[in-house]
Amino acid sequence: MSESVPRRRGRRPAGEDTRAAIMAAARKQFAARGYEAATMRGIARDAGVDPRLVHHYFASKEEVFVEAMQFPVRPTTVIGPLVEAGPDGMGERLVRVFFAAWDGPDQRERIMALLASAATSPEGARMLREFVSQEILQRVAAVLPGPDARLRAELAASQMIGVAFVRYLIALDPLASAPVEQLIELLAPVVQRHLVGPLPADPGAGRPAAG
Amino acid sequence: MSESVPRRRGRRPAGEDTRAAIMAAARKQFAARGYEAATMRGIARDAGVDPRLVHHYFASKEEVFVEAMQFPVRPTTVIGPLVEAGPDGMGERLVRVFFAAWDGPDQRERIMALLASAATSPEGARMLREFVSQEILQRVAAVLPGPDARLRAELAASQMIGVAFVRYLIALDPLASAPVEQLIELLAPVVQRHLVGPLPADPGAGRPAAG
Repeated sequence: MSESVPRRRGRRPAGEDTRAAIMAAARKQFAARGYEAATMRGIARDAGVDPRLVHHYFASKEEVFVEAMQFPVRPTTVIGPLVEAGPDGMGERLVRVFFAAWDGPDQRERIMALLASAATSPEGARMLREFVSQEILQRVAAVLPGPDARLRAELAASQMIGVAFVRYLIALDPLASAPVEQLIELLAPVVQRHLVGPLPADPGAGRPAAG
Repeated sequence: MSESVPRRRGRRPAGEDTRAAIMAAARKQFAARGYEAATMRGIARDAGVDPRLVHHYFASKEEVFVEAMQFPVRPTTVIGPLVEAGPDGMGERLVRVFFAAWDGPDQRERIMALLASAATSPEGARMLREFVSQEILQRVAAVLPGPDARLRAELAASQMIGVAFVRYLIALDPLASAPVEQLIELLAPVVQRHLVGPLPADPGAGRPAAG
């Protein structure tokens, strides 16, 4: 590997400068306007480039956000296959996709940056809320049964966000060092229950809410 | 109420000054040394007061921490009754205690401060990790069956931390505005499953971990 030609020498190629300018403008737009109100056109304007150039580098606003926030995966790429197979087994597929994306040493800092940004500024919280809402929860809820589909998708998400907080951020053992396969085994049925409701054989299935 | 005698006029009574000095010293100790290594004696020394005075105001290090971090409840006070009744129905009791403590407008800022402190500094993360570990998880895990009791307690905690993050911090609707009773109904069985394992009638109960 050390013999390979270095990709950078002297100043960066023009393409990289443009990308960097787009990224800087995007981060500002997302923080100032949130994910929903930010536009490819506005990002291009702030970056001082032609909008067509932004579209040349990025297929969508989602892709810009994913790169700006250093998300390890594009939700649209992973959630499609995850939900297309229907509710059966979706809990396990969702948990697997989550750990495949986030469970690496490089990802911990990204998770920390993301949670810290949401925890310390209203702008960070709004940005994450709007992105998660539009690109993740809306897609998951669309294939779930029942009137509470969206709430169920959020409860499933809250389980995985909580695991990220405890495993990566405050690093509580044994959860922090448990093998991923053990966690999948323990979390999949719970996430599945959130998504599609009580399993048929569950005692208490269909019991009406108290109050 | 407006007719009542104001409690403060001019400078604060000596007792309040002492408490404030103890609190300032405690916050520094917890941040610098973590929860486990901090001591009542060390806090007294940093506050420039006799250790007996710290014990006069606070029954334990846990009580000092709870006041310093503005925790809404003392874990030892609420967890005792919660676990003494045994594993049956513990999921629901735990979820109820959680919302009773945290689900008020005054509490949101405290939750945000707590999560932000853990998300933005290793000291904040360690402080929270050690406190949650020693004063909450250890007590809950002690009454759970099986070798994975501690991991199960952490998964239950991660569910509730995730709910706090989504409901209070990023405020995703409908979870942010759902009635507490509806959330208890949806979360109790899931937390119960984390705590004591699959319900007997669950399909997949006792299935060995993959891999």
